[in-house]
Amino acid sequence: MSRAGEQTFIYDHPPVIRAHASIVGPKEGRGPLADWFDTILEDDILGQKSWELAEMEMVRRCAKDAMNRSRLSDEDVQAMLGGDLNNQIIASSFAARTLGVPFIGLYGACSTFVQALVTASALISGGFLENALCVASSHFCTAERQFRFPLELGTQRPPQASRTATACGAALLTADCDEYGLRITSGTIGRVIDLNITDANHMGAAMAPAVFDTIAAHLSDTGRTAEDYDLIATGDLGWIGRELLLALAEAAEVSLPPDRLIDCGASLYAQRQDTHAGGSGCGCVAAVSCGWLMKRIEAGDLNRLLLVGSGAMLSPTSSQQGQSVPGIAYAACIERSGA
Amino acid sequence: MSRAGEQTFIYDHPPVIRAHASIVGPKEGRGPLADWFDTILEDDILGQKSWELAEMEMVRRCAKDAMNRSRLSDEDVQAMLGGDLNNQIIASSFAARTLGVPFIGLYGACSTFVQALVTASALISGGFLENALCVASSHFCTAERQFRFPLELGTQRPPQASRTATACGAALLTADCDEYGLRITSGTIGRVIDLNITDANHMGAAMAPAVFDTIAAHLSDTGRTAEDYDLIATGDLGWIGRELLLALAEAAEVSLPPDRLIDCGASLYAQRQDTHAGGSGCGCVAAVSCGWLMKRIEAGDLNRLLLVGSGAMLSPTSSQQGQSVPGIAYAACIERSGA
Repeated sequence: MSRAGEQTFIYDHPPVIRAHASIVGPKEGRGPLADWFDTILEDDILGQKSWELAEMEMVRRCAKDAMNRSRLSDEDVQAMLGGDLNNQIIASSFAARTLGVPFIGLYGACSTFVQALVTASALISGGFLENALCVASSHFCTAERQFRFPLELGTQRPPQASRTATACGAALLTADCDEYGLRITSGTIGRVIDLNITDANHMGAAMAPAVFDTIAAHLSDTGRTAEDYDLIATGDLGWIGRELLLALAEAAEVSLPPDRLIDCGASLYAQRQDTHAGGSGCGCVAAVSCGWLMKRIEAGDLNRLLLVGSGAMLSPTSSQQGQSVPGIAYAACIERSGA
Repeated sequence: MSRAGEQTFIYDHPPVIRAHASIVGPKEGRGPLADWFDTILEDDILGQKSWELAEMEMVRRCAKDAMNRSRLSDEDVQAMLGGDLNNQIIASSFAARTLGVPFIGLYGACSTFVQALVTASALISGGFLENALCVASSHFCTAERQFRFPLELGTQRPPQASRTATACGAALLTADCDEYGLRITSGTIGRVIDLNITDANHMGAAMAPAVFDTIAAHLSDTGRTAEDYDLIATGDLGWIGRELLLALAEAAEVSLPPDRLIDCGASLYAQRQDTHAGGSGCGCVAAVSCGWLMKRIEAGDLNRLLLVGSGAMLSPTSSQQGQSVPGIAYAACIERSGA
């Protein structure tokens, strides 16, 4: 059995991240991580007739970029795992249509990219796939009109709201046994946690309990502490949610040193960019990890990273019906071979 | 490596279907399979305030029923894999919230149940999970108002339209090594196939090419013919789509004997029930397989079944923007131990 504990997969044959690619929109390309992303779009419509088609095209380009970097062709890629925030994950499935690759559609809201890494790593480590493409995307304009208000209304956003990033990240995982490379060595599946947050704008508050639950499960299952990681990077808690996570850890007496904890949503934009609580969206953690964090591990700046993607499992319908906002989080341990 | 070919997983340690449960709505409970379903609802609102909450409650009850039959408690279930047609799969994720079980949210439209069986079987065979709950649901009223028109409008449906089933199926898979039982021995991941069907009502036509593609891949990967199966049960092609599948197979010179091919959507309702092309929805193949087909294998009526779930990967947005309807299909081989 490859399983460590209740919620964590230990990969006996840890897959290598053979290639990764990131694309972000113009606003994201003016943020603090601008120099790291592989592609910064000049506009967010990509020559398409709708935002949704633009997001599909962004997924296709990002997937192709990762495939080109890996020197694998469409025919060589045995599966694509991923999803997005659009109803019925049309950005991902339409991109999979274009690529012709076997497709496992996932939905974990903004946690989808890490959910894909955890699932694909198990399928590769278990010998079912030799390689798999993990991809997730989000687009500010598709998300705004679907979840909130049409952009044309110019609705004011509350200070606790995050901004859905126009971004996509793709990682090509492979069973190759090269000595050197980034490897995914373990992954934790989250539970759906709900502390009765009913403000659908306040994603950080809705997701922080799920992030804490998954980190605590990961540490317990692996017998590690937060100090065993050079960095714990959460996805999309934003500045407020990060503080709530630290408070939850303190209350539960779980050591979570603030200097080892960053949030992808809080890292994507500068505060001067007026994005309120930070970035969110499936593409946020995907682009920040593929564009920035994986390169930091490759450069030797980090050895072992715990990447924790979190999602708010709400829909406009559930919110309108008065339901609170459940959160979920998945965690993947990414480290340099031999580290 | 446990992999047979390009798209098919061969499970070296085939999981056992330890328990299964099915729930259907009143109309489905008046169809030809009425005697087989475990629960027939007297109404389709289940004492809830909305159709969406009713669907969540249906998922929760069906999951609990399967867990009770398996004699596993909530705490024992290591993962729930599943999804539904609601935007952001809220029926499944809210049910997972109630159950407190680690959750892997999937979206494969009406193919989701088989997608869950294929993925969960790999995670169990690979040693990552000891047991997993696979579940998928659909509800006529949530689907109508989300994808089509509010029921109150009384809109007339075209003859090629299928009816979204109010139904849920749940199967609890386990690594237990009992001699006897139903086992999932292989699973095939589909590609997203699009032959440019733009009629969003005509699911059978949109999905038949994907179903054919997956069946052909499964047979090629495993070196089998359709005659190696006592039955091939497709999900949700309906009466028209089944004919299209037979035509595609004939054109490609792949043997697909009509007497070994049934469709869950075409089996769920009698033609006199005026459901036009047949049943559809994630719950259709889930309830028909858990309620009827698995019991037929247990009774010795069938030895080896190829269950093929198919999904139309469209959203109202993609249809309104003039996109055609891509299809996808997953296949799981279910057989009696020792068969």
